Amino acid sequence: MNESKPLIRRCTEADWPAMWPLLRATFEAGDTYAFSPQSTEAEIHAVWMAAPRATYVAREGDGPVLGTYFIKANQPGLGAHVCNCGYVVAPEAQGKGLASAMCEHSQKEAEAMGFLAMQFNLVVSTNERAVRLWRRLGFEIVGTLPGAFRHMRLGLVDAFVMFKTLD
Amino acid sequence: MNESKPLIRRCTEADWPAMWPLLRATFEAGDTYAFSPQSTEAEIHAVWMAAPRATYVAREGDGPVLGTYFIKANQPGLGAHVCNCGYVVAPEAQGKGLASAMCEHSQKEAEAMGFLAMQFNLVVSTNERAVRLWRRLGFEIVGTLPGAFRHMRLGLVDAFVMFKTLD
Repeated sequence: MNESKPLIRRCTEADWPAMWPLLRATFEAGDTYAFSPQSTEAEIHAVWMAAPRATYVAREGDGPVLGTYFIKANQPGLGAHVCNCGYVVAPEAQGKGLASAMCEHSQKEAEAMGFLAMQFNLVVSTNERAVRLWRRLGFEIVGTLPGAFRHMRLGLVDAFVMFKTLD
Repeated sequence: MNESKPLIRRCTEADWPAMWPLLRATFEAGDTYAFSPQSTEAEIHAVWMAAPRATYVAREGDGPVLGTYFIKANQPGLGAHVCNCGYVVAPEAQGKGLASAMCEHSQKEAEAMGFLAMQFNLVVSTNERAVRLWRRLGFEIVGTLPGAFRHMRLGLVDAFVMFKTLD
């Protein structure tokens, strides 16, 4: 990233037209997120923009959206001190540290919002790059869900629950 | 249960007025479910009646609701082959096998709906009776979430992720 590190900021509805193609392509691949590969724009807008506590983009001016993530409470009421995030990095930005930068950004944001921990509910076990990255950033695999993800190419594969207590 | 085993059936809106006081009292205790103890009737109706794939009651005629449970997909799209259920038993019906009967009923229903597995996302570790029961019914603790439940009397306690592959 270094000098080319893109700005990570809260998104607005004005960013959505540039976010949706990235999200659509990500979910269509069917290898990282449970969202149906046939999800409509309205469905993904609801889960990525409307439902979360906050949504962010990595984007310079009107340039391409290089990444996006959301923060939300993972459970209601008595579980709402643990947050959940989802991250997507554009193909052209991969391998440059943006996922790591967004995850660290999200942890700071989550702490500022008062969250005490962060949980990922369904990390696809075959997504080794993600698993390695989350581990490097302090997340632990606290559970394994047998065959819980229907991978578009590989069929049913295990998924991990990953968890990090925030500072 | 035996000869006094109550009928477990799909509920209708006509059952709701008798379901809500039981659900309210359960969630107000703040020791088993994450739903806020201050949840409104509309909020709980949304999660217990409207959102799930199906909701059931254990009730004879117009008698008291002795128990209720819901079934829903635990994740969208590529995780939607795993279901999630929530169960509540009325105080006067506890210790008579109704939770066990509802869980077995829910597994049959879930299989008929095509679900391949059942997952509980936040089993409060101090709810030993529930943990023991789910284990007896074939669920395994596949994950431990540190301090993920804010117990009304005990403060932050661990929660378990429990999982069972259906037949």
